[in-house]
Amino acid sequence: MGKAFVVVARKVYTSFKPLNYVQAFAVYGGRVIYAGSKDKAVKIVSDLGGDVLDFSDYTVIPGLVDAHTHLDSLGLALNSVDLRSVESIEELKTLIKRASEGEHEWVFGRGWDQERFREGRFPTRWDIDEVVGDRPAVLVRVCGHMALLNTAASRELAIEELAAERVIRNETGEFTGLVVEEGVEVAMKQFWSRVDDRTLRKYLIDSVEHSVQYGITALGFMGASTRVTSALAELSLIGVLPAKVDVYLSHEGFRKVSELGFRAPLTFGRVRVVGVKLFADGSLGARTAYLSEPYEDASKVRGTKLLSSEEIARIASQASDLGFQVAIHAIGDAALDEVLEGMKDVRCRKRVEHLSIVRDDQLAKLGELGVVGVIQPHFVLSDWWVVRRVGPRRAKWVYRFKDLSKFIQIALSTDSPVEPIDPWENVYAAVTRGESEGVELAKHTSDQKLTVSEVLHYYTHGSAAALGREDSMGKLEPGYSADFAVLAQDPLEIELDEIKKVKVLEVYVDGERVYSREIR
Amino acid sequence: MGKAFVVVARKVYTSFKPLNYVQAFAVYGGRVIYAGSKDKAVKIVSDLGGDVLDFSDYTVIPGLVDAHTHLDSLGLALNSVDLRSVESIEELKTLIKRASEGEHEWVFGRGWDQERFREGRFPTRWDIDEVVGDRPAVLVRVCGHMALLNTAASRELAIEELAAERVIRNETGEFTGLVVEEGVEVAMKQFWSRVDDRTLRKYLIDSVEHSVQYGITALGFMGASTRVTSALAELSLIGVLPAKVDVYLSHEGFRKVSELGFRAPLTFGRVRVVGVKLFADGSLGARTAYLSEPYEDASKVRGTKLLSSEEIARIASQASDLGFQVAIHAIGDAALDEVLEGMKDVRCRKRVEHLSIVRDDQLAKLGELGVVGVIQPHFVLSDWWVVRRVGPRRAKWVYRFKDLSKFIQIALSTDSPVEPIDPWENVYAAVTRGESEGVELAKHTSDQKLTVSEVLHYYTHGSAAALGREDSMGKLEPGYSADFAVLAQDPLEIELDEIKKVKVLEVYVDGERVYSREIR
Repeated sequence: MGKAFVVVARKVYTSFKPLNYVQAFAVYGGRVIYAGSKDKAVKIVSDLGGDVLDFSDYTVIPGLVDAHTHLDSLGLALNSVDLRSVESIEELKTLIKRASEGEHEWVFGRGWDQERFREGRFPTRWDIDEVVGDRPAVLVRVCGHMALLNTAASRELAIEELAAERVIRNETGEFTGLVVEEGVEVAMKQFWSRVDDRTLRKYLIDSVEHSVQYGITALGFMGASTRVTSALAELSLIGVLPAKVDVYLSHEGFRKVSELGFRAPLTFGRVRVVGVKLFADGSLGARTAYLSEPYEDASKVRGTKLLSSEEIARIASQASDLGFQVAIHAIGDAALDEVLEGMKDVRCRKRVEHLSIVRDDQLAKLGELGVVGVIQPHFVLSDWWVVRRVGPRRAKWVYRFKDLSKFIQIALSTDSPVEPIDPWENVYAAVTRGESEGVELAKHTSDQKLTVSEVLHYYTHGSAAALGREDSMGKLEPGYSADFAVLAQDPLEIELDEIKKVKVLEVYVDGERVYSREIR
Repeated sequence: MGKAFVVVARKVYTSFKPLNYVQAFAVYGGRVIYAGSKDKAVKIVSDLGGDVLDFSDYTVIPGLVDAHTHLDSLGLALNSVDLRSVESIEELKTLIKRASEGEHEWVFGRGWDQERFREGRFPTRWDIDEVVGDRPAVLVRVCGHMALLNTAASRELAIEELAAERVIRNETGEFTGLVVEEGVEVAMKQFWSRVDDRTLRKYLIDSVEHSVQYGITALGFMGASTRVTSALAELSLIGVLPAKVDVYLSHEGFRKVSELGFRAPLTFGRVRVVGVKLFADGSLGARTAYLSEPYEDASKVRGTKLLSSEEIARIASQASDLGFQVAIHAIGDAALDEVLEGMKDVRCRKRVEHLSIVRDDQLAKLGELGVVGVIQPHFVLSDWWVVRRVGPRRAKWVYRFKDLSKFIQIALSTDSPVEPIDPWENVYAAVTRGESEGVELAKHTSDQKLTVSEVLHYYTHGSAAALGREDSMGKLEPGYSADFAVLAQDPLEIELDEIKKVKVLEVYVDGERVYSREIR
């Protein structure tokens, strides 16, 4: 419970749609109690015995909300080898060799993409064995739906017992070290079971602290286990969590909690358990996203349906009865068909994650269903090869953010660590669609660009709506939480190519300062 | 999130210790933001665009907090036969016969006390069979530690399979229908398993609505199961719960929640799960309270030790590690010895419930342990026979509230439905100790009377401290929740015999009006 204070700034954006700004706002008990003129705000706060925070040179915006992240994996990524810019298997080997000389027994890396590799092939376990020997190594592909394990890790994680379709073998039938979909899940579950509680808490706190420095004040955490949720709750209740986190349990986690009959939202200080995360399909990168017609570059492959509409309906109705939201991953248009059918009688807040490929006929149906669409504009840059996967005819269905925004509420996110958590990179991607980077999709979908104020509206109010918090979060109007960021630049006044360089000076959550570059 | 308003009253007591009152206070977002002069409060609220609630003829106090209740049983009691004033077995039979003509299959009654009965004996199952025949009937004694089941209920609840010491037989070895301690628990558990969800929710909402009309804004709910907690959470989350409820799980409920690793407090809107409730012994009425020397009226009986100090230490440390409070029932002085020993290395908030018999040497130890003592002054009137149980030498150890208050934080409660939930009856008992009613204990302990302002301090701040909410509840100072009651009389200005007739006009929780006699 903070005391009273007033924030004065060059501009305080109280909301981005309608676009509104004021000179100042007053805060009491962690909430905005007044927003308007400087004189009146100062008067109110002086009556309440409070202070003035003078940001007259700067811009204040509502805190950004990343509606879809994986904080445990982000924390792991922050403590692992970053493979996102690796351009060859040789470079991969060099980085992994260096990491294996560290103190941890396990080598963990994330972010490789064979599409970038000079060798034009997937890496194998033998490549990695050459440089790490008996040390176990796990290297997750950029999409998160495929991983490479070396021989030691494969043995330790008993990965060879997996069903045939989850492991990739070479022409002579030997296991290559590559696992996909459930294979990644099994490997990662085993890996996580070897992470002790202290390390887990470090990963979680690192991930949230890392996020806050970019102006993020709340995060959606997708697919958390009860163990991870408990660790996060502990950090919250001992008062060290600098942002709000809304948890969407894994299906298994949801089953455990629902057995107790506990309803959502369950709140642990800044952490709330609000929903369940489901998967309707896989990813475009691994060609497991479920399409209604075959992939352009694999004429017999349509991807993987992970849940039928009947299964979706059953789980969603059970979740809904307990007050849980349902957030369902759907990348391919065929997966979305299952979602549209499965969710149609469900009453809870419905989120569809990614919505990467949406046919024209699906737009109105999404609107009728009243879903929140949780998108990741940075995918446009990372999936620069996507037109190859779906061909030119379907390219206009891909990442059609502007079209979606006409039918449904859009929420912004990064799927971090899949994409960088930095929201300004994400804003840039949504506004430019990789035009300067020569992304092919940009040519097909230049009409899908969003404006900066639209993106900021979705990154604040939109994402708050995805979390079911639109009445208390995402604006700086009276009654809203005093979650805000102080910026050196006004993102609505600078050039597009400066967006990525917006400097965040201070961040506040519930009126408490949680990050500062120490400008004052 | 309520909007701004100001409350103006004849007197607003912002706290009872130190005794402080003001003319008015301002509320925003459910919290007090200013308390002081009417002019300044009105000015602040008009700047925020709020209204004035004019209670100029009345007195406003912080909402009362009953720190120890059983809301499921209270709800059941409100929907059952009240046997508290029954003075003979014949009268009991008449009431039960009438109740058995109702629509419910089960007859449930509560509050009988054989000490009041003209016949000078315990009632038996045959007494009840005479009037209800094959209908099952369960009649709980006033103390809650003994129950009478008729033959149909005994059969239905499979009560004869209980251990010998939990059922009372007559001289010829026949089961009388009376069960004690765990026997009551088993019978009630079976009974509750036959209560459907709709009825359970009705019981819970009835109990909270009934409490609020007396000026109560928060309740401690002791020994709740996960099922009951979930039902309460649902009522809270759908917005129909008019008061705050802090849940102390049963030992079994705690085990289930701790298996998930979930930490306290778990919050569901107005409902928080904060602790675990344990029992160190039984009751004085049933001679199961654990004494260091035999009962005066049963020279071979010392009562029942339900938990050893080692068991207390083990459970309490486990609870404490998960952020749970420990609330432990200790009525006899020997039970308190176990508690003092068992709790000494426990770091969490420690509550001892009842503290009915406390030796001189235990007072300082309680103080060192830093416990909150949760007392029920109305026991003084209900246990009018207590000197008979413990004899005149030990009488000065009984319900020694004033002495306790010099060593530990006192919290007020009713143990409802054991005692009436009406706090004004309870205040009266604490202030008068049954002197006018000729209670024998009053002669031995007249120095243990509390003043009205002391009792109100314990009923607000003290009970808030028992719940671990002393920083946000129990006062009407800036930063505290706007939980308050509007009274027709000023309890500090009226005669003692008028205390029981204090009229509550309106009640607010988090600034929301939850009860009104419709004066305005």
